[in-house]
Amino acid sequence: MRVAVLGAGSWGTALASALAENRCEVTIWARDARITQQIQSEHINTRYLPNAKLPASLRATTDLKTALMDAEVVIYVVPSAAMREVVELSRPLLSGAPILCHAVKGFDPTTGSTMTDLLLEYHPDARDRFCVIAGPSHAEEVVEGLPTTIVAAAYTRATAEAIQDLLMSKVLRVYTNPDVKGAELGGALKNIIALGVGIADGLGFGDNAKAALMTRGLTEIARIGLKLGASVLTFAGLSGVGDLIVTCTSLHSRNYRTGKLLGQGKSLEEALAEVGMAVEGVNATRIAIQLASSHGVEMPIANALSDVLFHGKPPRAAVEDLMGRARVHEIEEVARDQISASWN
Amino acid sequence: MRVAVLGAGSWGTALASALAENRCEVTIWARDARITQQIQSEHINTRYLPNAKLPASLRATTDLKTALMDAEVVIYVVPSAAMREVVELSRPLLSGAPILCHAVKGFDPTTGSTMTDLLLEYHPDARDRFCVIAGPSHAEEVVEGLPTTIVAAAYTRATAEAIQDLLMSKVLRVYTNPDVKGAELGGALKNIIALGVGIADGLGFGDNAKAALMTRGLTEIARIGLKLGASVLTFAGLSGVGDLIVTCTSLHSRNYRTGKLLGQGKSLEEALAEVGMAVEGVNATRIAIQLASSHGVEMPIANALSDVLFHGKPPRAAVEDLMGRARVHEIEEVARDQISASWN
Repeated sequence: MRVAVLGAGSWGTALASALAENRCEVTIWARDARITQQIQSEHINTRYLPNAKLPASLRATTDLKTALMDAEVVIYVVPSAAMREVVELSRPLLSGAPILCHAVKGFDPTTGSTMTDLLLEYHPDARDRFCVIAGPSHAEEVVEGLPTTIVAAAYTRATAEAIQDLLMSKVLRVYTNPDVKGAELGGALKNIIALGVGIADGLGFGDNAKAALMTRGLTEIARIGLKLGASVLTFAGLSGVGDLIVTCTSLHSRNYRTGKLLGQGKSLEEALAEVGMAVEGVNATRIAIQLASSHGVEMPIANALSDVLFHGKPPRAAVEDLMGRARVHEIEEVARDQISASWN
Repeated sequence: MRVAVLGAGSWGTALASALAENRCEVTIWARDARITQQIQSEHINTRYLPNAKLPASLRATTDLKTALMDAEVVIYVVPSAAMREVVELSRPLLSGAPILCHAVKGFDPTTGSTMTDLLLEYHPDARDRFCVIAGPSHAEEVVEGLPTTIVAAAYTRATAEAIQDLLMSKVLRVYTNPDVKGAELGGALKNIIALGVGIADGLGFGDNAKAALMTRGLTEIARIGLKLGASVLTFAGLSGVGDLIVTCTSLHSRNYRTGKLLGQGKSLEEALAEVGMAVEGVNATRIAIQLASSHGVEMPIANALSDVLFHGKPPRAAVEDLMGRARVHEIEEVARDQISASWN
């Protein structure tokens, strides 16, 4: 099977390696020739996955046409802000009817679209060939051979199972899911919560506060997800709570680290410069605020984040507001719907 | 308001302190006179909360009658294995119609009952006065003044709100919930998952595996909870996923620490001796296996734990089995119900 992986960041490199180890013919594409040459000749990606030895069979190129030639599967793994351009550039170079897969956890910054909705603009007849790869999967651990579960979500069973077959290995356990929207929303929106949890940690709040933010964050994600057509069950799965947990509790997470630096008093610019990779949560916060407002949904954590990121609100005040003044007689949010069935 | 807190472990001491700071008249009871004398005269509990200065107004006694005299609220915070005896001893000493509250995260070891079902055996007419305190709340952080959210679950709104009013403070944010069964099952069953996650960490598995175990663990808890009459929504809340997160990711957690020692090669006896406090997950695993079998529910994580704890299975083999061999075409468990609505 010929596969093109577009994007040689840490997750693109890890996915390309996993596929090459599963005996796919994989070509990874990136703009930066230093990265592609290093992958091609030294089998390493110093910038994004410095400790991993990559498979010798993995090819790399800066030429999109070469990467896409005869590709039966194309996997987009670029920052969300670059997705539109890469989809535009690659469209005329596709041959046949390849599976169009993405592993991008963010929104289109100009339209607020999810990545599959963006793909649909350029490939309106290819919906059945779309697939989303999501779930709790730090690239660093996948290339180290540490066991990892991911989700392949697609509109058709055949497409989901094709990607499942390609990726399944001793290291990667792949589950299929029909809820494309839910899988991509979980991955994109959890980055907002990770920023918030990072801030709380940076301020010296404890594990109790962190668990509270994550729990309420999950409710918030599910609430907007439901409005956007996702299934609430998906948020209870690997691409929802699973990805939320890994992103909020691991030092590998860029969004968490960015939040932590903010909590420690750095400015957004300083924090982003220090992390040095795309931090999807910043744009996702902006989009989430717009979605919440246009759908009439409450997203208190995203709002608090927005105040900190874009309106100069001190992080401590934002987290204290979130953890709440003593409001009396508040019913646990998830329980509201049960009330009529229980208490009178 | 006169409150008796029965049990002077870390959580009992923290709850008693929080109530005393909220100007309740609180007496804490424990069997060990060294602990009660120290609380009463030095305002400290060296054994269970060594770093906390307790309120001077908090009284302590080894005499159950003194503790319970005129108590309007009784809070049981003893290890689950001691609950039956303490409920038996305290019953004849109660006066009036006090609220009977518990903050015990475990099952009765002989009958497998939840703590409120145990209470019901001795107080069949007092159901409306039962309350469960649950949620992600390490005692160490509560006494340090770090913000914490908890749940007060009761069969009647009046009881839940009474406990909410008593405990709500700048530090503690209390939500009410009508799902008593769900709140106590979440607290008890999450300890099983924490043992499993601890083992995975002890073996050197990564954050991806940890997130996968927690996600699948949550599904497993919700599945048995549903059979036992709990609401699935409660498992998405503070006493469900919230408590699961805090227990699986914090070094304060005894169950996690016990699991980690097992993963590092210690025997169960060695691990329990090193942790030195009640580790509820061990008994909870035994009970869960029985419940799963009698209700025909799959609990793979609890089963794997049971094999390690009671049947000498090597931890590595158990976790590898859980993370799974490459089973092909497995649909994400939470998604199964959606399938008919989506894929054909």
